[in-house]
Amino acid sequence: MQTFRPVQLILIWMLCVMWNVQSVADTKPIEWRMSSAFPGSALQLGTLGREIARNITDISDNRLKVAFIEPNVIERPFRLFDAVSKDKLEAAWATPSYWFQKDPAFALFSSVPFGPDPLEFTAWMSYGGGAALRDELYEPHGLISIVCGAMAPEAGGWFRREIRQIEDFRGLKMRAFCLGAQVLQKLGMNPQLIAHDKLHTALQDGSLDAAEFSMPAIDTNLRFDQVGQLYYYFPGWHQQTTLFELLISQSAWLALPRAQQAQVRTACAANLARGIAQGEALQARAILDIRERGTEIRKFPPQVLNGLEKAWLEVAAELSAKSKNFARIWAAQTRFREEYRVWRELGYLR
Amino acid sequence: MQTFRPVQLILIWMLCVMWNVQSVADTKPIEWRMSSAFPGSALQLGTLGREIARNITDISDNRLKVAFIEPNVIERPFRLFDAVSKDKLEAAWATPSYWFQKDPAFALFSSVPFGPDPLEFTAWMSYGGGAALRDELYEPHGLISIVCGAMAPEAGGWFRREIRQIEDFRGLKMRAFCLGAQVLQKLGMNPQLIAHDKLHTALQDGSLDAAEFSMPAIDTNLRFDQVGQLYYYFPGWHQQTTLFELLISQSAWLALPRAQQAQVRTACAANLARGIAQGEALQARAILDIRERGTEIRKFPPQVLNGLEKAWLEVAAELSAKSKNFARIWAAQTRFREEYRVWRELGYLR
Repeated sequence: MQTFRPVQLILIWMLCVMWNVQSVADTKPIEWRMSSAFPGSALQLGTLGREIARNITDISDNRLKVAFIEPNVIERPFRLFDAVSKDKLEAAWATPSYWFQKDPAFALFSSVPFGPDPLEFTAWMSYGGGAALRDELYEPHGLISIVCGAMAPEAGGWFRREIRQIEDFRGLKMRAFCLGAQVLQKLGMNPQLIAHDKLHTALQDGSLDAAEFSMPAIDTNLRFDQVGQLYYYFPGWHQQTTLFELLISQSAWLALPRAQQAQVRTACAANLARGIAQGEALQARAILDIRERGTEIRKFPPQVLNGLEKAWLEVAAELSAKSKNFARIWAAQTRFREEYRVWRELGYLR
Repeated sequence: MQTFRPVQLILIWMLCVMWNVQSVADTKPIEWRMSSAFPGSALQLGTLGREIARNITDISDNRLKVAFIEPNVIERPFRLFDAVSKDKLEAAWATPSYWFQKDPAFALFSSVPFGPDPLEFTAWMSYGGGAALRDELYEPHGLISIVCGAMAPEAGGWFRREIRQIEDFRGLKMRAFCLGAQVLQKLGMNPQLIAHDKLHTALQDGSLDAAEFSMPAIDTNLRFDQVGQLYYYFPGWHQQTTLFELLISQSAWLALPRAQQAQVRTACAANLARGIAQGEALQARAILDIRERGTEIRKFPPQVLNGLEKAWLEVAAELSAKSKNFARIWAAQTRFREEYRVWRELGYLR
């Protein structure tokens, strides 16, 4: 009768252990540091970033753990592009407008003056050719950008004086950002990029005549009603949509199993739906609160909007002359919008 | 020196095997049969259902396998509510309007004449109190309903004659569905629910004077241009949104691990974003094709829309008198919309 000695038994046991370890090896978690361009406490700007980190972690059953990292802890907001590109970070939560200095074409994937609203914008991105153009733009930098959230349209901004005609803009100092700021500059304004926590003082002491910051539900926290009598203008012609992106290094992306790639894409699409629904739900109450606290709510007169749009088309032509990417993408977006207009005018109740 | 006999060794080996089986037991897949109210080939109606089944399966890494089952294979569309409620099926792909006969209140979670568009509708559902009211309505039936997709607004319908005033509707036989059909009935029309594959003949032989079926990208396949000169009217006042639901039996839902519940919710939110983007992208081209093939594209005159809206408000009052659920939910939706209007009028460029 054959027998086994303890040493043999230990070897058999070790084989068993290795077999078991192998079968759970697939579940070892991957960890991503996702550095944010916005503070986690900022409504939608940051909260949607927190949400996506949590949601990916949840639906991956903790196999892909995404950590939301506050701005400036690892990297400054405007440097996130390079940090992810160089694999200093696996991912970033940002908006393509932040890479405007690298190429103005990036801004066409986030918000465009007189541009598409969130419905039309995501239609173009997902089913109108936008995504392929975006991928071409990011690919040479070793980056994947996924549409991962949207914010409601911004307001037109706070003004110390009434705006009756396009000439009233001339000489005004206004806080403004990106493509919208370029339009205002063309109209003889002095656009300035001032941090939101300095705006209150700047409007109060007259070093600013006007400021746009964000959508009403965020603007309401700036408490500009305490500055004195202001006009709060609509619509936010400069930013009818703000799309957020999950920016991922190609190598981090390629290291993900297929199911986890699907989890990231799905969580981002869900975050988009969440952002749009939340944005729509919050603004009316905020506007009513702002009005109740003494600020005049106004709409830009049609001739002012026409003047702004004319100036924007000039800016777009100039940027097209400077950047081949801008020219190509702007032309494609414009073509999509021309056809889409047929539907927007017929399909919806006013 | 102690030795082991083969029989002992086999026992040790069996322990190893059991240990390993235990460690992979968590990954044994759960399988759901999701019976659809719409054929899988039908654009958005069915394709979004196929997509959600695939997407849940993918992001669960095959641990929750959802099978898309064509209508009538296990259950007829209008009986899906009962089938899931009685655990004959784990899930169904449907629209709450289909349960109108059980309680007209269900229709308020899918499409409402002169009701919210997809942006406003999902804002109300997710952040305006709609979801809680829906859960109250489904809970006594042992059902969970999750918003899981949306379709673009429908068109107003195909007409054999021009519609100039509200009186032109009187006596017309029109294919129509659900709440919209009740409005038409109030205006002296004869609404009829005819299957889409019978519509062509019915319009041709005059047994129908008019028909609404769906959104342009679906309607275009009906090839009504071959019927003869028709008018294709906009907007689809009766159905500015169609929300789809994933209907789940409570017991199937409660049997899911938390991560998989999160996967289902996330996949549904993503499917919603996909549905909206796709719907927006497809309609303009379809309208242009329909026009090119000889059908007149028209808008209902304002006085016709006003007459339809007045009739709808009467229908809503009647349904509120008949159903406490309808009364409560209709009042809540109306309150939300009154405040929201402030934002819609200010926030967006026209």
